[in-house]
Amino acid sequence: MRLKLTIAYDGRSYEGWQSQVGNNTVQDHIKEALALTAKEPIALQGSGRTDAGVHALAQTAHFDAPEHLTMNPYNWVPALNTKLPATIRILSCEEVAPDFHARFSAVAKVYRYDLCTDPVLSPFKAGLAWHVPRLLDADVFQEALQVFTGRHDFQGFAANRGNETPETDWHRTITAAELEALPDGYRVTWCGDGFMYKMVRLMTGAAVHAAQGRIRMDDLRKLLDQPAGLPHGKSPLCAPSDGLYLQEVRYIS
Amino acid sequence: MRLKLTIAYDGRSYEGWQSQVGNNTVQDHIKEALALTAKEPIALQGSGRTDAGVHALAQTAHFDAPEHLTMNPYNWVPALNTKLPATIRILSCEEVAPDFHARFSAVAKVYRYDLCTDPVLSPFKAGLAWHVPRLLDADVFQEALQVFTGRHDFQGFAANRGNETPETDWHRTITAAELEALPDGYRVTWCGDGFMYKMVRLMTGAAVHAAQGRIRMDDLRKLLDQPAGLPHGKSPLCAPSDGLYLQEVRYIS
Repeated sequence: MRLKLTIAYDGRSYEGWQSQVGNNTVQDHIKEALALTAKEPIALQGSGRTDAGVHALAQTAHFDAPEHLTMNPYNWVPALNTKLPATIRILSCEEVAPDFHARFSAVAKVYRYDLCTDPVLSPFKAGLAWHVPRLLDADVFQEALQVFTGRHDFQGFAANRGNETPETDWHRTITAAELEALPDGYRVTWCGDGFMYKMVRLMTGAAVHAAQGRIRMDDLRKLLDQPAGLPHGKSPLCAPSDGLYLQEVRYIS
Repeated sequence: MRLKLTIAYDGRSYEGWQSQVGNNTVQDHIKEALALTAKEPIALQGSGRTDAGVHALAQTAHFDAPEHLTMNPYNWVPALNTKLPATIRILSCEEVAPDFHARFSAVAKVYRYDLCTDPVLSPFKAGLAWHVPRLLDADVFQEALQVFTGRHDFQGFAANRGNETPETDWHRTITAAELEALPDGYRVTWCGDGFMYKMVRLMTGAAVHAAQGRIRMDDLRKLLDQPAGLPHGKSPLCAPSDGLYLQEVRYIS
């Protein structure tokens, strides 16, 4: 039986989603809880990576429950949560079609990015929002975010993972970049058919720089139109991981 | 010049307010930041202790700025915050009368206690709310909280610190115990002229036990009326530190 997990995590304690040496990743912790429950190793496929320090409100993943386990899907929720750190929580577990794939069946993703503009960042927001106390023009912010909507070659707003080839397709479609005022700052909600490495952080950071008058709107548009030799992972435009949340992975159902 | 600090902290990372061996207390961190700023040790008097894991939205403390330092009081805020961990924040610094005392001038305190009743505790609430998924009757909860309002001998709802004497006065006045429904649980706001060690956690825990039908209202009243040999720090009625926040220290001004 193929099962789909919906998972929330506070990324401050982890080296991102993807399994790696040291095992302090969200995927490693969940695989350990799965193995403890099933008494055998179980492969776990996520919808995609999140970087160190990035949070998730509803990451998704799938796995195949061993034949001999006749647990009701819902019972995996407490079975796993009791074995996981409190900053990783399984929110739901449901049966899906045998050909469902957490990554390849996804048709859209939603990320949110939280900014705090208060002079002092609350100690309860440390690592959970980007602290931007410098004055920010909301109208310019809104205008800058809209530069990214639509279908574009986003090579200038993606960092390399090292496995890119000349055939790598850098095109993505951003269907929405919504700006919401919060009592202590702003929330940007990004919807798109897919996001490359650091893409949300590079777009959000660039829009914030525009809203602070540190980059002109024309130059921002040029950055997107002329992808060669443009800001990547180490770019000063890149927003920190603190305020970034994977909010939803959408499937056709 | 005597200065009053207002301080917020996420208690998860600290061994409470009060200085102790190991120095991982909020008071120790602020004293270190004061000494680095003033280039000499400075005594720091808080309004009172908070236990390990307890949070503060507005703890208060006072200190005397050395004569040679002619800083504007407000400038202490960034001077200290740049030297403090991000989970301790100085919210304000203001000049007060030379006879102001953070502890002895206080006339009232407000604590808040957050409960989460969702089946799964959000990873962003771990250590920040008491997870109470078991069914809870809000009317009984409200009734149980009111048992504590007014002036009482609270010896049955205070833990010993070891420095108590036969002359210790166990009387306190609770002026309000307000219950508020949150989207994912409840918030109790306690106002009083003073609170003894673990008193808020013992009262909140007892009221929750009543709301869950695990202790009868009559027995709860008896516990308060008959203070001898009653639940103390190790009581099963004691709520965890997770959901407790020092919200306000009131002064006559």
